[in-house]
Amino acid sequence: MRLSLIDIAKLLGGEIKGKKDVVIEKVATLQKGEKGSISFLSNPKYESFIYSTNASAVIVDKGFVPKETVQSSMVLVDDAYTSMSVFLEEYERIRSLEKKGKESPSFVSESASIGDNAYIGAFSYIGDNVTIGNNVKIFPHCYIGDNCAVGDNTILYSGVKLYKDTEVGSFCTLHSGAVVGSDGFGFAPQESGAFKKVPQVGQVIIKDYVEIGANTCIDRGAIDATVIEKGVKVDNLVQIAHNVTVGENTAIASQTGIAGSTVIGRNCIFAGQVGVVGHVSIADNTIVASKSGVSNSITKSGKTLFGYPAMDIMDNKKSFIIYKKLPQLMKQIKLIEDKVTSLEGKSV
Amino acid sequence: MRLSLIDIAKLLGGEIKGKKDVVIEKVATLQKGEKGSISFLSNPKYESFIYSTNASAVIVDKGFVPKETVQSSMVLVDDAYTSMSVFLEEYERIRSLEKKGKESPSFVSESASIGDNAYIGAFSYIGDNVTIGNNVKIFPHCYIGDNCAVGDNTILYSGVKLYKDTEVGSFCTLHSGAVVGSDGFGFAPQESGAFKKVPQVGQVIIKDYVEIGANTCIDRGAIDATVIEKGVKVDNLVQIAHNVTVGENTAIASQTGIAGSTVIGRNCIFAGQVGVVGHVSIADNTIVASKSGVSNSITKSGKTLFGYPAMDIMDNKKSFIIYKKLPQLMKQIKLIEDKVTSLEGKSV
Amino acid sequence: MRLSLIDIAKLLGGEIKGKKDVVIEKVATLQKGEKGSISFLSNPKYESFIYSTNASAVIVDKGFVPKETVQSSMVLVDDAYTSMSVFLEEYERIRSLEKKGKESPSFVSESASIGDNAYIGAFSYIGDNVTIGNNVKIFPHCYIGDNCAVGDNTILYSGVKLYKDTEVGSFCTLHSGAVVGSDGFGFAPQESGAFKKVPQVGQVIIKDYVEIGANTCIDRGAIDATVIEKGVKVDNLVQIAHNVTVGENTAIASQTGIAGSTVIGRNCIFAGQVGVVGHVSIADNTIVASKSGVSNSITKSGKTLFGYPAMDIMDNKKSFIIYKKLPQLMKQIKLIEDKVTSLEGKSV
Repeated sequence: MRLSLIDIAKLLGGEIKGKKDVVIEKVATLQKGEKGSISFLSNPKYESFIYSTNASAVIVDKGFVPKETVQSSMVLVDDAYTSMSVFLEEYERIRSLEKKGKESPSFVSESASIGDNAYIGAFSYIGDNVTIGNNVKIFPHCYIGDNCAVGDNTILYSGVKLYKDTEVGSFCTLHSGAVVGSDGFGFAPQESGAFKKVPQVGQVIIKDYVEIGANTCIDRGAIDATVIEKGVKVDNLVQIAHNVTVGENTAIASQTGIAGSTVIGRNCIFAGQVGVVGHVSIADNTIVASKSGVSNSITKSGKTLFGYPAMDIMDNKKSFIIYKKLPQLMKQIKLIEDKVTSLEGKSV
Repeated sequence: MRLSLIDIAKLLGGEIKGKKDVVIEKVATLQKGEKGSISFLSNPKYESFIYSTNASAVIVDKGFVPKETVQSSMVLVDDAYTSMSVFLEEYERIRSLEKKGKESPSFVSESASIGDNAYIGAFSYIGDNVTIGNNVKIFPHCYIGDNCAVGDNTILYSGVKLYKDTEVGSFCTLHSGAVVGSDGFGFAPQESGAFKKVPQVGQVIIKDYVEIGANTCIDRGAIDATVIEKGVKVDNLVQIAHNVTVGENTAIASQTGIAGSTVIGRNCIFAGQVGVVGHVSIADNTIVASKSGVSNSITKSGKTLFGYPAMDIMDNKKSFIIYKKLPQLMKQIKLIEDKVTSLEGKSV
Repeated sequence: MRLSLIDIAKLLGGEIKGKKDVVIEKVATLQKGEKGSISFLSNPKYESFIYSTNASAVIVDKGFVPKETVQSSMVLVDDAYTSMSVFLEEYERIRSLEKKGKESPSFVSESASIGDNAYIGAFSYIGDNVTIGNNVKIFPHCYIGDNCAVGDNTILYSGVKLYKDTEVGSFCTLHSGAVVGSDGFGFAPQESGAFKKVPQVGQVIIKDYVEIGANTCIDRGAIDATVIEKGVKVDNLVQIAHNVTVGENTAIASQTGIAGSTVIGRNCIFAGQVGVVGHVSIADNTIVASKSGVSNSITKSGKTLFGYPAMDIMDNKKSFIIYKKLPQLMKQIKLIEDKVTSLEGKSV
């Protein structure tokens, strides 16, 4: 991708100071800047780097007064931090437009319906009765099983697997290796000690504006659906079991696992490596610190939990401080005990 | 898939009450039932939903006496719960029969042998000297390396990767993204601080009736094999390291990890996010609660463990109750100490 | 693969005792040895197996004096253990040479550059401006996004996904399902409670001699790169978040997660299921025991940590011993308390 600095300045409503005839090919911090890259300076503590950077251009606040010579072209804007963010979104938008059309070979069922302006990467598989919306990008090696639906403007990166009957909303992003719709872990123990599979015939429904991380797994429901509500963000390597519901705008960090039939509220935050048992409800606005294990329903909104079994984070911290001192506490108790024995001797 | 209600009633040995000319296309609970779906009523606490459901048909006990009008057709059977389970198995069996034949393009080595009635999905890769049994279903994007063998009636969902030399038994199910036969994590530290790879030339052997979850990893043995015995059920995102043996009918829930050379007994249950260190043995019928870490061999059968390091679950619960009260305990000790000091003053 | 025993003896500088005209097809331990397999005897405690093994050949120390008849051919060498290791490396080298050339169909952009002697497996995708070095092996179903570079002698097993802009060094091994370059988990909370995606435009740089395990995820940096330094070994199902740096020759075991912007030193060892929070630094030579959670920077080199929050391993063990005894400790305190109450009664 090649952008002219003049176009960038126009996009940001900024003014170029220095060389105008510059082509930008990538983005970097000031420290890592090189020929063809653009950086930004917002936090004054990084000011020194603007005098030594090799970046071709730097976005700066228009009030910025250099104390030394700046080699790079500068784009003067009202607010460098906001402008950088605007620029990055545009940069990503343009890069994403590079992918379009249908690469060969790919496998598209005759009964599938593909929207306008979609990208179908090579080696992608689109099964029977699938519906793909407009502007969808399906990178190579995706598998979209029979009867799936994918909404407009959604991106499936290379190697996403959607089992049959899965529904994905609009403006979603699913990262490589994400598996949606695999069988729930349901087995009935037999007298012989063997397990008998309980058929898993439900589906997974992912609403709009959801992001699913790389190699994350979301199992289909046993009969009804597993549901990921609008705006949910799920990180990499997360496990979401059958018949779970995750409420709107909840964020779930990497390697967390939610067991079967649990209902997660809205606007919750789960840090990394958290576990939640099955068949419980977690209230809205709950925050669970990393590596915690939640083994009961949380009924009151807005709590912050920590530990395993998870408890109020402040209570846990108080207990942990003493846990660390348990050896001294033992000594203290022994000392008291000896004194008492000595007092008992005296009082006889 | 479209099934007539008459055929369903025949399968279940039931009798239709209401409209007979009904086509069933999917399964749902009463609450989520809609036109074309079939539900069941077994637990009386859900009875109210049968009067409001939109399901086209409902399977009910023949003794059921409606208190209000039921719009749906009813299939009267001896035991609705058992009949639903019979129906679900049949439903899954029929749906799975939809996949057959060889889709194009796929890559099948000339030296591979494919059984009767197999499904080879598009973009699947079958290497040299591979043997595929009868009725095997290989969904798109599977990789079956050289010298692998897959037994009759086994299903590999989209994107399963079997490294060379892997053996998979009959009636197994491997879910998307499962990786079997990757190198064990074996490196010899050198004086320089660098690691030298220890060649991993063993294989993975998976026996009959095993289920392997999505994105689970099972490493090949260093010299001999990693072995998953008959009837083992493994959930998603599980790690099974090199030279592990997992005994018959053991179940391992999501995100659990078993380190190298550990031997797991029969009929054990590992809940989610458990860790087991390498080079230990776990007795038959051991149950390990979620998030526990097992750091020693378990020699006695039938124990239930919890915590990290894992200990008897009841002992751990007793200790944890006090852990939560440690701040009060500290205060109590301080109080006793003060009293003792006061007593010492008096007794002088 | 078929190797003559005479060639093997030549490779090891050894001498054959017994039948020379033997063909070796695989490797096994003495206990599992069968016709066509080669084993080794180094540890005297396994000597008995050499008299009963079915292996066609066994590598032994030249000083070995059998107490009974050995049926297998023996290869007498200076040091059986070292020779076996030399043999295994050669065995793997030869097996890996079996893969070469370009299988069809595959997708290689016209602007991609492929080195000499590379293996491009069927259904692999190589995007625009990609550079692939000499002797690289790309197994089926790999995705190599635009502008990626892969160094000489690197192996990508089936289904590796490299997002655009990723750089992988020479002599690296990436296992199946590894995802490199997926978006970092960066979202800005909005007043509405929804999250706004922060564009992730950095890249991932993997240096030489790195091994990445199956289904491991390494996210791209937000602006600058996520960096895996030379000689790092990463196991399966590991999460490495955006802008992390992992120092030279550090080893990270399965299911560990490193949160964003954390800097890991050189020669560290992370056992399985460890978590490290974001934005901290871990000193060189740090060892973290399995399942620990590191929530602060570690500034002193060479420490061994355990627990969550992680503390010095010896301190934690001391505290845990008392944790297990907390119920007894409670009783002991109650007893002391009673005695004090009794003493107070007497002293009044």
